[in-house]
Formats: sequence, C-alpha cells, structure tokens
Amino acid sequence: MRAASRAVRHSGKRLGLVPTMGALHEGHLSLVRSARASTDVVAVSIFVNPTQFGPNEDLAKYPRSFDRDCELLDREGVSFLFAPAVEEMYPAGSSATWVTVDDLSSKLDGRSRPGHFRGVTTVVAKLFHIVEPDAAFFGQKDAAQVAIIRRMVRDLDLPVEIVVGPIVREPDGLAMSSRNTYLDPQQRKQALVLNRSLREIEKLAQAGESSAANLLAAGREEFASETAVRLDYFEIVDPGTLDPITDVSRGALVAVAAYVGPTRLIDNILLNRTP
Amino acid sequence: MRAASRAVRHSGKRLGLVPTMGALHEGHLSLVRSARASTDVVAVSIFVNPTQFGPNEDLAKYPRSFDRDCELLDREGVSFLFAPAVEEMYPAGSSATWVTVDDLSSKLDGRSRPGHFRGVTTVVAKLFHIVEPDAAFFGQKDAAQVAIIRRMVRDLDLPVEIVVGPIVREPDGLAMSSRNTYLDPQQRKQALVLNRSLREIEKLAQAGESSAANLLAAGREEFASETAVRLDYFEIVDPGTLDPITDVSRGALVAVAAYVGPTRLIDNILLNRTP
Repeated sequence: MRAASRAVRHSGKRLGLVPTMGALHEGHLSLVRSARASTDVVAVSIFVNPTQFGPNEDLAKYPRSFDRDCELLDREGVSFLFAPAVEEMYPAGSSATWVTVDDLSSKLDGRSRPGHFRGVTTVVAKLFHIVEPDAAFFGQKDAAQVAIIRRMVRDLDLPVEIVVGPIVREPDGLAMSSRNTYLDPQQRKQALVLNRSLREIEKLAQAGESSAANLLAAGREEFASETAVRLDYFEIVDPGTLDPITDVSRGALVAVAAYVGPTRLIDNILLNRTP
Repeated sequence: MRAASRAVRHSGKRLGLVPTMGALHEGHLSLVRSARASTDVVAVSIFVNPTQFGPNEDLAKYPRSFDRDCELLDREGVSFLFAPAVEEMYPAGSSATWVTVDDLSSKLDGRSRPGHFRGVTTVVAKLFHIVEPDAAFFGQKDAAQVAIIRRMVRDLDLPVEIVVGPIVREPDGLAMSSRNTYLDPQQRKQALVLNRSLREIEKLAQAGESSAANLLAAGREEFASETAVRLDYFEIVDPGTLDPITDVSRGALVAVAAYVGPTRLIDNILLNRTP
C-alpha cells in the first residue's frame, strides 16, 4: 500500500483516503465522490478495527459485505483498496502503543463506549502512516470522531488534510449507518425518533431560540414520544471541544445516541454553522 | 521544514533526522556522522521538549548552547536545523493528544520519571510527522527510550527506519551527556562509578557468568563503593521488552541510573548482543 501511495505522490498527484469499516452505504460513497472531486487518486480502506469495539459490543456480528463493497468501489473509480487482516494491523495480538486525545475521548460516545476513541485514533494514525494520504475523508455522522481526529491531526502535526462530508440520510430521514441492517421493520420505524428530535430542535433554532436548555428540552420531549427507544445521550456541545454550551448562536453540535432494541444508533445536526 | 524535507525526498534523496535537545556533545555528533554515512541529506532538530520533564525536574536549567550547536552542525555538514519554539510545537499550551507505549513507558526511567516517556514518544511522533525522515538516529545511552521508540514505530507503522548509535564516552569512561555539565569536579569523579559497575558486570559476563542475579550483585557491590552516589535503579532486562531477565546468555541490557548530587545520570551496556 505504501509503495503504491508513494508512486502516486511521487508522480505529483494528490492521494485521498476514505477509511471505512466496510458494509458500505451511500454515506461512504458520498465520501468517495468527495475524495475523487478534490484529489487525483482515491484509496479506500476497509478494516473492522477490533480495538475500537468494547468487550460487549458488536465486533463479531458487525456487517461484512466485502465482495459487494469491492463492486461499489470499482464503480466509483477507486484506484486502491486497502483491506488488511487483523493480524497484519496487530501482529502482536494488539498494540502496545496508543494514540489518545485527552478529554475529548471521554465525551459523547467516548463516555458510553470507554476505550472506543482510543481504538479509533490509534488505527487512524496507523492508516495515515501506511497510506500517507494528502487528504482523508470522514463522515459528519460520527461527529465526536471528527472532532477527535481533527484534534489528533493538529496536535501530532499529521500531514493530512481532514475533509468532512455531510450526513447522508434515507428518504425518511434516518441517518445512513452500516448498523441500520440490524433493525427489524418495527425498529426501523422507531429509529426515526432520533432524526425527528433533531429536526424539532433545528426548527426552533431557525425560529430564533438560542438557549441550549430550551432546545434540549424540546428535543427530549419529542424523543420521549417514542417509548421503545432508550436514550443514551442527548447533548448540545461545542463542535470542537465537545463541551456542553448554553447558547447555540455561535455554532453548536446537537448530538443524540440511543438504543433501538439492542442496536445503538447515533445522529446529529450542526446549528449556526460558521461558513 | 516539511517543504524542505519533501523537496529532498522528491529529488530521490534519503533524508536522515537526528532529534536532539541541543547542548550537543560528541554523542550527538557521532549520530550526525552516522546519518551522513547512511542518508543523503541530514536534518537535526533541537527542541528542549517541556512535556518530557517532570514538575521537579531540570527543564529550566537544562543546558542550552544554541550558537555553539549551530557551529558544530555546520562543521558536520548538516543541511537542515529544525529548532522550533515551544509555542510552535504546543500552540495550545500543551498537547491534548498523547502517544503512549503501554508497559514499556513505566519501566526503568519511566518508573523514576512518570510521564517522561509519554512526552518523548509524543514529541518524536510530532517530529517524524513534521520532518518526514527516511531514517532517524538515536543514541544507545537512552536505552529505554530506544526500546520504546522502536516499539512505537512498529506499532504505529511509522515509515521511519530507526538507527541506534553506540554510547560515546569520555576518556575515563563516563558516558557523554548534556547533563554532565552540572557536575562539579568532585561529582565528576564520583560519577565514574556508574560505568565502573557496568564494566565489572561486563568482565564477569565475558568470563562466563550468565546469572543476572550474580551479575547484578557484583555490579551493585562495586556501585556501593561510591557512597556519595545515590542509586536510582540497577537492572538487567530484555533490551526489547525492558522486563527483568534471569539469564543473560541470549542478550541483556544492563542499565543503571543514579543521582550524583542533584544530577541524575544514566548509563548501560548490552551483553551478548545478537549481531
């Protein structure tokens, strides 16, 4: 992979990397298209990274659709697919070396999933060192991940431009996720409450409400209308620090995570985004 | 720095980096010569990294001799000197992102200096990302640092070859160190006990003694003859894992650290080194 990447860059072309865990959907493909539009050659990685899953999480059953993923990437004009085995990425069983972003890693999903972001930042650093891309493309759906990776890149002077693509949604508003395949038809309907609560907040914010407390109360009220879905967190935070804020007028991330049956889903919106 | 480095590598030349904290001595210069011999263009960094000093350590008084360092590096044919300000390396005051090598970082010096190696690995990762060298050169005097950096490079797939140069000593055997300038003439003599104890062990090992316990006992006995020097640690460990070993016949690192007055010095030898 590194030899291929160096050949691309040595020829003066820019290389884009879209890191994924496979089970590709339109969200991933939109990142691939963004990468194709802004770089010369696109590499996609597929690696279901064990170190970012907790002991009671869904590593074993995480959806895998490698052949279909390859077809999709072919169709999108991707030049390189990097799909290492676990034993290649972690020859000694696991890494003794960890990249951690203090504070940020224990907020939002990091609070619900201890160790998750340590696994993410470590494997992303490894992928950056192996692929050496000029730019890497991540989805806004994983908003906390985006903040943490941006911070890691800045703090460690990683020579990679981070580009974030917007959330891609199903026609009814559900944020696309590889984990949506876990949902049965009834859960699929119940899951809409995540996006519905966010839209309620967005509507109020657009009408002039700037109090995070008021917005959250409205969002949580909407959320409570779907009693089958168990809330994990519902927060309004600074998109960079992930710290709670009280006023959304200078930009805010509204993030929600919830369990629909055993399936944990996340969604978010950005308010008053600075252009 | 990165632009300069990329221009070098784009022209097909290999770039070597010698990371230092300045106050250069013959140990550093031997690494520069090694770098010149095995790469095409040599960069040296000088950065007294605050994050690897403990709150009660010698950050403020650490010797600085920038003008002399520049002269020495000029004379050695170094092409690039990277000497960033603290505010450039840590714009936000400090890093929120840390690179840590679990276990290894709390052994030997890491046990005596909590947080030290976290600072080292983080700043070395940053320097690697900024300078993007093909090879980086470190001194065997910092044996634990060498083991930790090798492990970091392996675990994080950093695209940098690590080359380790032997300890350079004063004519009387004292390992060269920027901190030797702290010693008054009497302490300078007392400090010889570190190397003397190591030589005692080396002599016995060469005569066939392979028991780490017996070797350590002899080394510590020699060490105890200099009552003015306070021992920090005296260990025989695996050079890669830094774990204590009982038999030295398949390779061993004998490492000692001690306080001569307020000055902490370290020294080590490798036994039965595999070629």
